[in-house]
Amino acid sequence: MPARGDHDARRRDVSAAVWRVLAARGFGGLTLRAVAAEMGASTGLLTHYFPSKRELLRHALDVADEHTSARERTAPRGPGLAALRAALLDVLPLTAEATAMNRVWVSSWDAALSDPELGGRETERYARWRTGLRAHVEAAQRLGELPADADPGDLTLVAASFAHGLVVQALFAPGHIPAERQLRLLDRFLAGLAAGGAAPAGG
Amino acid sequence: MPARGDHDARRRDVSAAVWRVLAARGFGGLTLRAVAAEMGASTGLLTHYFPSKRELLRHALDVADEHTSARERTAPRGPGLAALRAALLDVLPLTAEATAMNRVWVSSWDAALSDPELGGRETERYARWRTGLRAHVEAAQRLGELPADADPGDLTLVAASFAHGLVVQALFAPGHIPAERQLRLLDRFLAGLAAGGAAPAGG
Repeated sequence: MPARGDHDARRRDVSAAVWRVLAARGFGGLTLRAVAAEMGASTGLLTHYFPSKRELLRHALDVADEHTSARERTAPRGPGLAALRAALLDVLPLTAEATAMNRVWVSSWDAALSDPELGGRETERYARWRTGLRAHVEAAQRLGELPADADPGDLTLVAASFAHGLVVQALFAPGHIPAERQLRLLDRFLAGLAAGGAAPAGG
Repeated sequence: MPARGDHDARRRDVSAAVWRVLAARGFGGLTLRAVAAEMGASTGLLTHYFPSKRELLRHALDVADEHTSARERTAPRGPGLAALRAALLDVLPLTAEATAMNRVWVSSWDAALSDPELGGRETERYARWRTGLRAHVEAAQRLGELPADADPGDLTLVAASFAHGLVVQALFAPGHIPAERQLRLLDRFLAGLAAGGAAPAGG
């Protein structure tokens, strides 16, 4: 029994060290050596957990998923557009913690685009995220808050794209785009999505 | 004279090999060894050009900048909103070449977020990009195509964010978001930006 407890505690130590390395240096700085140094352990110990770099990357995505799932969520003030707004707020770098999390996810894109398995995980992650957003979009359409004639998948993709892109812009220009400006931009964007009516013929 | 020509030709070979490695593996896969292998040269030769990893990363950003500047641009059908649309089209992964270029830029974010010098370059790059977009936004406001009462910097940031985020979504789901859908999403987005009116009170 104590051995099992030690084992679990050690796994938690490893995961915590992986997270600290990710938050400080991103996926590009994630190495067995960096995690070992963060734990004050030997690289040899780490190879016991991660026989290859890919195992380490895979675990790092799990750790990032866990942190993301465990974060505090914004309580929506209602269904439809308000719920969509709350869900988008939850991905913006509005706090130091959310900034660290976004920095990790943005850094994961390089590794994911180079590796079909990791890339497939990200593709599924974003598809699940969009599915969640789409439920709010469809509710907002039923409530008359978003154009009923628009394709809900398109509205969802436009909203998801805006939020992801704002994350990137804000990470590179935190002084230019502080939290209060992100909120203003989100509301400007949502006002447009709500007022958007029919898309013009491309021209 | 011939020596000089050889030197320039060799530099071009190095830059071309750096680009091919970036396009295939991103910044995370960019190593002296990978560039040397791509050229059929020795790693020793490469250390002559790049004494450190950082020199290689710095050069890689230069190479990516050159490719980006040299790309074909969309001819706008007019000033204002049409010019904004054309400028946003120029960043979307609508072709194989534009996809490769975007894959390189997205992969650069990890390295840039870990390194103040490289990060500073990206921050300036995106500030310059937004300055260019803002000129079109202001023209569109004067033409009555975008809400005159909106802050042009905010409209510009919303547009830049949408485009960057769509790049990321499309890179991870190319089958779900092919070129024609990107165009439809862009037009849906621009219709909203045009119709957006006053931003609602946050709520």
